Amino acid sequence: MWNDWKSWIKRRSPAQVITAYYIVSVTISVMLLRLPGVHLPNVEVPFIDTVFTAVSAVSVTGLTVVNISETYSVFGYFVIMLIMQFGGIGIMALGTFFWLLLGKKIGLRSRRLIMVDHNQYALSGLVQLVKEIVKIIVVIEIIGTLILGFHFLKYYSTWEEAFLQALFASVSATTNGGLDITGASMIPYAGDYFVQFITIILITLGAIGFPVLIELKEFLFRRKWDLDVPYQFTLFTKLTTITYAGLLVFGTLIIILLEFQHFFRGMSWHESFFYAFFQSGTTRSGGLATMDVSEFTMPTLLVMSIMMFIGASPSSVGGGIRTTTFALNILFIWHFARGNKDIKVFRRELHHDDILKSLVITILAMIICFTSVVIMSITDKHLQLIEIIFEVCSAFGTTGLSMGITAELSNIGKIIIMVLMFVGRIGLTSFLYIIGGKTEKTNYHYPKERIIIG
Amino acid sequence: MWNDWKSWIKRRSPAQVITAYYIVSVTISVMLLRLPGVHLPNVEVPFIDTVFTAVSAVSVTGLTVVNISETYSVFGYFVIMLIMQFGGIGIMALGTFFWLLLGKKIGLRSRRLIMVDHNQYALSGLVQLVKEIVKIIVVIEIIGTLILGFHFLKYYSTWEEAFLQALFASVSATTNGGLDITGASMIPYAGDYFVQFITIILITLGAIGFPVLIELKEFLFRRKWDLDVPYQFTLFTKLTTITYAGLLVFGTLIIILLEFQHFFRGMSWHESFFYAFFQSGTTRSGGLATMDVSEFTMPTLLVMSIMMFIGASPSSVGGGIRTTTFALNILFIWHFARGNKDIKVFRRELHHDDILKSLVITILAMIICFTSVVIMSITDKHLQLIEIIFEVCSAFGTTGLSMGITAELSNIGKIIIMVLMFVGRIGLTSFLYIIGGKTEKTNYHYPKERIIIG
Ligand SMILES: [K+]
Ligand SMILES: [K+]
Repeated sequence: MWNDWKSWIKRRSPAQVITAYYIVSVTISVMLLRLPGVHLPNVEVPFIDTVFTAVSAVSVTGLTVVNISETYSVFGYFVIMLIMQFGGIGIMALGTFFWLLLGKKIGLRSRRLIMVDHNQYALSGLVQLVKEIVKIIVVIEIIGTLILGFHFLKYYSTWEEAFLQALFASVSATTNGGLDITGASMIPYAGDYFVQFITIILITLGAIGFPVLIELKEFLFRRKWDLDVPYQFTLFTKLTTITYAGLLVFGTLIIILLEFQHFFRGMSWHESFFYAFFQSGTTRSGGLATMDVSEFTMPTLLVMSIMMFIGASPSSVGGGIRTTTFALNILFIWHFARGNKDIKVFRRELHHDDILKSLVITILAMIICFTSVVIMSITDKHLQLIEIIFEVCSAFGTTGLSMGITAELSNIGKIIIMVLMFVGRIGLTSFLYIIGGKTEKTNYHYPKERIIIG
Repeated sequence: MWNDWKSWIKRRSPAQVITAYYIVSVTISVMLLRLPGVHLPNVEVPFIDTVFTAVSAVSVTGLTVVNISETYSVFGYFVIMLIMQFGGIGIMALGTFFWLLLGKKIGLRSRRLIMVDHNQYALSGLVQLVKEIVKIIVVIEIIGTLILGFHFLKYYSTWEEAFLQALFASVSATTNGGLDITGASMIPYAGDYFVQFITIILITLGAIGFPVLIELKEFLFRRKWDLDVPYQFTLFTKLTTITYAGLLVFGTLIIILLEFQHFFRGMSWHESFFYAFFQSGTTRSGGLATMDVSEFTMPTLLVMSIMMFIGASPSSVGGGIRTTTFALNILFIWHFARGNKDIKVFRRELHHDDILKSLVITILAMIICFTSVVIMSITDKHLQLIEIIFEVCSAFGTTGLSMGITAELSNIGKIIIMVLMFVGRIGLTSFLYIIGGKTEKTNYHYPKERIIIG
């Protein structure tokens, strides 16, 4: 049995394995979410809405057609938390694993650390890697639960209630699941900056990418005799962290700028700042919100849409085109305009294949999202264009923010959003290989001929 | 004086020359449009609106904040036609010239034909090329005027009126200027399929690209003894023509599909077909319309927006990212998904630099258009999102279709639209070199390092 599985997996491409994992997870999740006792008494959920909830939880998006706290029992909460763990951590582990395996190494140190043998398809390496990722994420979740739990004692009358809320909030934030059992996302904590700060940190630890966490752990727990040598972070870690931070700061500033005469009118500076900061941070992939985002004005909603489209770091619990893809696009356009085709950054050069891939992924993502918007403008005529654009970007970025229209979607609309959550979560690299099918290697060449471009 | 100019032009980059030509043309156009007798008696046009009209005519876009027929005299009409000629033909000639000069040859035959010496900066070659382009375009315009003029005798009481209308219509269609002196674009001819058919042919001849016209001329007027050898069209001509035709057919079908239960409800098949056919064809860059496009539904408007964004062929009178850029994007994504980085098409291989350029241009164009939409959603709050998107794509594609909001734009809105018409017309290749400034050639290299993409 074990050997059968080993031999099956050996014959599959990474994209196939990740997709299979995703589909199996959704199927099991649907079954779990139909178990007796999962729903509150007298609550009926249509089958497509169960599937939608399962897809949303496995892809850790957080868009929902039902209100979790009014639909599911405490047992249901635990089922949902379990699904978010499998969706968030599982796909992150598989993605990192294949990336290592295909020889695109993070750096010798990290590889040694997670003990994946480059030259053989080591399932023991996979097991080891999954263990490492689960360990790091679960430790983060437990710390988050403890910090939030004690703090929540001032909101909830019993320890059980406070720690249940804290556990769900911590898991939802760390896996970037974006679901809530408060019934109104983070709005009850809109005035509690401590909770918001902890939540943003948890979201960031989930969305910054596993390789970054590994290197951070290495950096923080270095042995004494290593302290003399300056620690060398990988290019990936530098690039993704700076992009992540840049987007957070840019988003915060632009939201303040666009809303200080609108939504923030009459608010204190710290209220405005925290609203902007949290809503900027959550677009990376978190999906929790301290306000009803539909109260923002059009320009803010457009900027947030594009930030969700960019999404989180690769090998993380997030979606979208990914931070590195975005960074490479910007860097390359800048260099290309100056007549330079090599990108030099942090005393390293980027690989041409990676640049090409980032450009292709961005354009393909735009085509997919644009097509989705067009189709939904046919099937969901009752919605405004900005509501559709926001929802599509949110699903593709597996962010889970919404202008409040998810429950009103037509069945075709729901299916499109589910497909987008799937594509956004597994990432367009994997998606490309699925739609591309078998590689066609050809050995012949035709004469090259130049053509005029734009 | 002539030598001064020769030596000045030798020290300039193509982008600088084209931009200089554009700016000089706009400046002269503004002066011409302020001449006495240009306006109808008692008509006052604000300065920014004159600039807008000049930019619109030089970039052969056709968006207007004034109604031409209610604002300008017959003398004014001739001034506007002259400006469209200089904007349409001039930039087309310069673009083709530099493309030839930089060694990206169309093919030996074409080069020999237009007698541009590859190895020296031959101004005589430029003069020759401009003459050739002017000759072809003017012949097309004259034939168009004659065909339309005799036909228009059934609409207009005098020969003068009929042939003035025909001349303006022919010049506006061939240069893709998109302006009209009927007061309502092509709506008066909504039932006249003959006029529409001729107009689409004129638009296409202008927008298909000058190299295609040259090859077509060669093909049609071959000497007898050449007839034994099959004529070999260049890859550029094949690719751009097929893309052009493909977009026309796709656009027609999709408009019929999206509107047969809406705008086309109750219409005969040929009415529906011609509305769809003309409006599909005009998105390439023509800008004339046989109907008020704002009567279309949201999905149709979105599809037309993206078709205008794609725009016309390079080295033509049109704008946008260009047909070849779009074709290369689609071809490359398709090949990339199959693990293949060489694009083979028509027994030729495309150059990697061209592919890279097409990807960069597409992404940059999306960033520019998206930023414009965001800014206009701040400055022109009174407009709907789709109206802004449609207007932005129309300006960037130098198409000139509008949902009827151009006259309502704020001053900042007008400036953004003017900038987009400029960028769309000169093309992003030129624009890239302008913003990029001096090339930085470096001889050192850093170690390459892979990073994780999406
Ligand atoms: K999420
Ligand atoms: K036009």
